[in-house]
Amino acid sequence: MGEFEIIARYFTRPVHRGDVLLGIGDDAAVLDIAPGHKLVVAMDTIVEGVHFLPGTSAADIGYRALAVNLSDLAAMGAKPAWMTLSVSLPEADEGWLEGFSAGLFELAQRHAVALVGGDTVRGPRVVTVQVAGWVEADGWLSRAGACPGDLLMLSGVPGEAAGGLAAMQQRLEGEAAARLQQRFLRPVPRIALGRLLRGIASAAMDVSDGVLADLRKLCAASACAAYVDVDALPRSTALETLFPPDACLRHALAGGDDYELLFTVPASRLAALEAALAAVPAAAASSAGETLPQVRRIGVMCAGQGVQCLRQGQPFELPSSGDQRRQDDRPQGGYDHFAAP
Amino acid sequence: MGEFEIIARYFTRPVHRGDVLLGIGDDAAVLDIAPGHKLVVAMDTIVEGVHFLPGTSAADIGYRALAVNLSDLAAMGAKPAWMTLSVSLPEADEGWLEGFSAGLFELAQRHAVALVGGDTVRGPRVVTVQVAGWVEADGWLSRAGACPGDLLMLSGVPGEAAGGLAAMQQRLEGEAAARLQQRFLRPVPRIALGRLLRGIASAAMDVSDGVLADLRKLCAASACAAYVDVDALPRSTALETLFPPDACLRHALAGGDDYELLFTVPASRLAALEAALAAVPAAAASSAGETLPQVRRIGVMCAGQGVQCLRQGQPFELPSSGDQRRQDDRPQGGYDHFAAP
Repeated sequence: MGEFEIIARYFTRPVHRGDVLLGIGDDAAVLDIAPGHKLVVAMDTIVEGVHFLPGTSAADIGYRALAVNLSDLAAMGAKPAWMTLSVSLPEADEGWLEGFSAGLFELAQRHAVALVGGDTVRGPRVVTVQVAGWVEADGWLSRAGACPGDLLMLSGVPGEAAGGLAAMQQRLEGEAAARLQQRFLRPVPRIALGRLLRGIASAAMDVSDGVLADLRKLCAASACAAYVDVDALPRSTALETLFPPDACLRHALAGGDDYELLFTVPASRLAALEAALAAVPAAAASSAGETLPQVRRIGVMCAGQGVQCLRQGQPFELPSSGDQRRQDDRPQGGYDHFAAP
Repeated sequence: MGEFEIIARYFTRPVHRGDVLLGIGDDAAVLDIAPGHKLVVAMDTIVEGVHFLPGTSAADIGYRALAVNLSDLAAMGAKPAWMTLSVSLPEADEGWLEGFSAGLFELAQRHAVALVGGDTVRGPRVVTVQVAGWVEADGWLSRAGACPGDLLMLSGVPGEAAGGLAAMQQRLEGEAAARLQQRFLRPVPRIALGRLLRGIASAAMDVSDGVLADLRKLCAASACAAYVDVDALPRSTALETLFPPDACLRHALAGGDDYELLFTVPASRLAALEAALAAVPAAAASSAGETLPQVRRIGVMCAGQGVQCLRQGQPFELPSSGDQRRQDDRPQGGYDHFAAP
């Protein structure tokens, strides 16, 4: 029984509240709270040894605990506002707490997110953050909504975070390794891009489990299929410096943790997207430390179900890897906490 | 460094958002969301071996994870609406998940709380729940607001939950032990009472760490002191059946986990309180499985700081206990996850 089956079987119940516009199963929930605005709520947990390697700096853990949640809000087109925090720690380690809170608030302040409550308990090292934010009525994005013919778009350069994790595990050094590590340790939630996509994208989600795995979820939610043009994927010089071509492709298609946005745009709105991207002054987007990422068309949605990669126009299967650390290294796999190893 | 110092030192930062009406430090946060209504948000984490004994049934854990959060909302006078849930589990144990979700949703459905999102990860057994609910503008209760002369009130029978935990640890059996265990395992969040106290109580909180420890927090937040009339504490026949008088008193004053409401009422509003309590049809309060608890006056607020117990009018110190399991067994102590043992 996998994570998604657990959620479906045990934690998905009929909701009898009219104010729950979007419940379990997307990047975040959408609640009907105030006229004209909807509350968007996301929660993520990170566990030592599972989501971060032992020895990861406390500041990076603090940053990341919030970043992965903000990324969920970005995928909904929401503007973050508040967070709550649960920290379970084996001991009151002042150095760790100092670093953790510094990393957390560094990102929180960038997005004007206030910590409003939470819980601090003794136990194994586990951090849960919930963030809440706002989105305009009817302006929110979800995984559902893509239609056959819509263009499939991706922000950023996929696979760099997975390459960073691999570089850390293999103790690689140098400038390229450092750049990739930073992409793994300090993902940039694409809040500005998410806000810009309101009214333009037909569906959106953030890439946490890998492009193919997450695209399959988007396809399932939208009841359609997708072709991915492997040749159109942005390539990373840093990745190509450190890894052979097959590994680069595997990181790009199946590596997780990039926290970029994967979204679809009706062809009729492509011009609107390009205009919106061009209109954002770089300074405005980077006021929250966020340089607007490049956005690339990487495929197209079509009728049917599932995801098919194409390379030079031919069907293409991702070669398998010997690395057992993450299940998403399996061909077209996605990370599932409870999947059989 | 204790839990409260950790929160003060590392997690309390200036809030620059005008919509945070009440932030860290009370039972829940209050957010200014919609005209006329405020959003109330609470988060609690429970850890196996810390908050529940290994071997506790999954259904009881599920119930309790939500109950302690709803109790925080009750202490604010709020009406619960939604929750998010993070579950970290060592393995996908179907029996455990079945029981846990049954216990969780049993209580959720009683209060029409919808689970709208969360996270399921592999790791040590840790459960975090966040609940959000509504309270009318200016109708919310907090720990601050008590004034010298206000009457100190308590719902329910203090100490029964702590007695239940002790009974479980000592493997006591029989009807009294079963009753106390139920009080520990299935605390009843006092939502109906909290709603009723809006406009009547000057301050309120829920009793999770023990009457004296929590009262000290209420006193500190309200910048005043309190006398507790030990003779006025409701007595529990079940407790007195199982434990000697000193232990009963220690459970009543220093035992945690009752999740009753401790609140203050200006003398001028005592009649309004009595009228409100009398006016609630038993059926209405119990529609959410909640019989309105008895409410007793147990003391008075006064100028100064700290808490003083009185017994037959004389200052009284709680005798110490040899039991080391919980720090709140220390005289007038409160539970602090990171306090030195």
